[in-house]
Amino acid sequence: MSDKPLILVTNDDGIHAKGLRELVEVMQFFGEVIVISSEVSMSGKGCGITVDHPLRAIPVEQIHGVPTYKSNGTPVDSVKLSFNSLLPRIPDYVVSGINHGANSSISVIYSGTMGAAIEGGLHGVPSIGFSLDDFSADADFSKAKLVVARVFQSVMENGLPPFVCLNVNIPKGKPKGIKICRQAHGKWVEEFEKRTDPHGREYHWLAGYFKNFEEDASETDMHALKNSYASVVPVTVDMTCYKTLEQLKDWKF
Amino acid sequence: MSDKPLILVTNDDGIHAKGLRELVEVMQFFGEVIVISSEVSMSGKGCGITVDHPLRAIPVEQIHGVPTYKSNGTPVDSVKLSFNSLLPRIPDYVVSGINHGANSSISVIYSGTMGAAIEGGLHGVPSIGFSLDDFSADADFSKAKLVVARVFQSVMENGLPPFVCLNVNIPKGKPKGIKICRQAHGKWVEEFEKRTDPHGREYHWLAGYFKNFEEDASETDMHALKNSYASVVPVTVDMTCYKTLEQLKDWKF
Repeated sequence: MSDKPLILVTNDDGIHAKGLRELVEVMQFFGEVIVISSEVSMSGKGCGITVDHPLRAIPVEQIHGVPTYKSNGTPVDSVKLSFNSLLPRIPDYVVSGINHGANSSISVIYSGTMGAAIEGGLHGVPSIGFSLDDFSADADFSKAKLVVARVFQSVMENGLPPFVCLNVNIPKGKPKGIKICRQAHGKWVEEFEKRTDPHGREYHWLAGYFKNFEEDASETDMHALKNSYASVVPVTVDMTCYKTLEQLKDWKF
Repeated sequence: MSDKPLILVTNDDGIHAKGLRELVEVMQFFGEVIVISSEVSMSGKGCGITVDHPLRAIPVEQIHGVPTYKSNGTPVDSVKLSFNSLLPRIPDYVVSGINHGANSSISVIYSGTMGAAIEGGLHGVPSIGFSLDDFSADADFSKAKLVVARVFQSVMENGLPPFVCLNVNIPKGKPKGIKICRQAHGKWVEEFEKRTDPHGREYHWLAGYFKNFEEDASETDMHALKNSYASVVPVTVDMTCYKTLEQLKDWKF
């Protein structure tokens, strides 16, 4: 048995995405790697799971010579299935990405990349989601990989508390550095584009743009990215709003 | 124009679910109701959104005489689409459910019911997800509806902070009362059942059971439910783990 750490690599852009291959390449420097991903894109699947049909994980052509499986599930499904049925043991790390496109601010709740990292963290395994602020299929990951390596090495050295994972977003081009941040407050607005199909029926494409409610807040991930820094946000699975909890205690039931 | 509040009702069990009809019936006492739901179950879709195909919302047979639309999207898609293209104005409230099955503890991240409520809250609209701790299709919602009415009236009277929604779970049978709670720490374990199909190929059903890490913590939603109380947890969209954030500042980048 290898004494190298066992690293599960996954993503939400699917098994053919360039970012997945780049992430595998970095992780091979750090440990023994196993890859699971889906055949189709699982972008936007968030923490979604599959309850209405069964899952399969099938060995496919290896990426960079490491065992590689394709799954028909969401990123969260893939992590769960790997932990339960695929891996020889619980892995030492789960890494997800490198996503084609940023997952800063509120995107953390919609992102399949982050869904996988959240699920890994929930199982007590140090987990990280990596995203590059570039949607193009042939994006240049060469600089991003250095950020991935630095953050991953820091996690190896320092560990992470259970139930907490990291959301790492990397700017396009050469990053000026890495900043520890909180999630920026913002949301997507004017989200749909209405069209009419050849049969005269309406349909709607999800589109719109992101509205940052706090452009100037230098401690946020959006601010870091905008200023060419990579952002590292620790993400919890406890969604309780403790501030509101105290207020609600005045409600009389 | 009506001076009654406008209430958007949705769910993740689909447009034919009994719990949806029951929720519409309660909401009609409080305001003008519009319903949007999917034709098929969207259980487990979490905050998932649809990016790879367009969405449609089609008027269908009214539920209890209120305008009703079927959508081909997730619960979050349905809320977004309603806000952007369907409703005459931004609604005063979004309510989701009544889900067939509890969404306490970590289920908040996987739940489509809660996905819809989280999305409503994110848009600054007071939003509530309601779930009954009974999976059966013909569950008895008669007692649950009283909890729904009480919590909804409290929200009307007190409001909710922006970006915060409520996760309300209701026990089977007669609730002893309503408790303000935090989300219990727990996770699903031994999650897959392996089977072999008629062609000799393996497949896996998501199954397993829930492990509560803090059975005795009386301030949690799981504890309330187990003791026949309805639980009300305020849910935030800010997933930053602030405790870990402070620790990470010691990391040298």
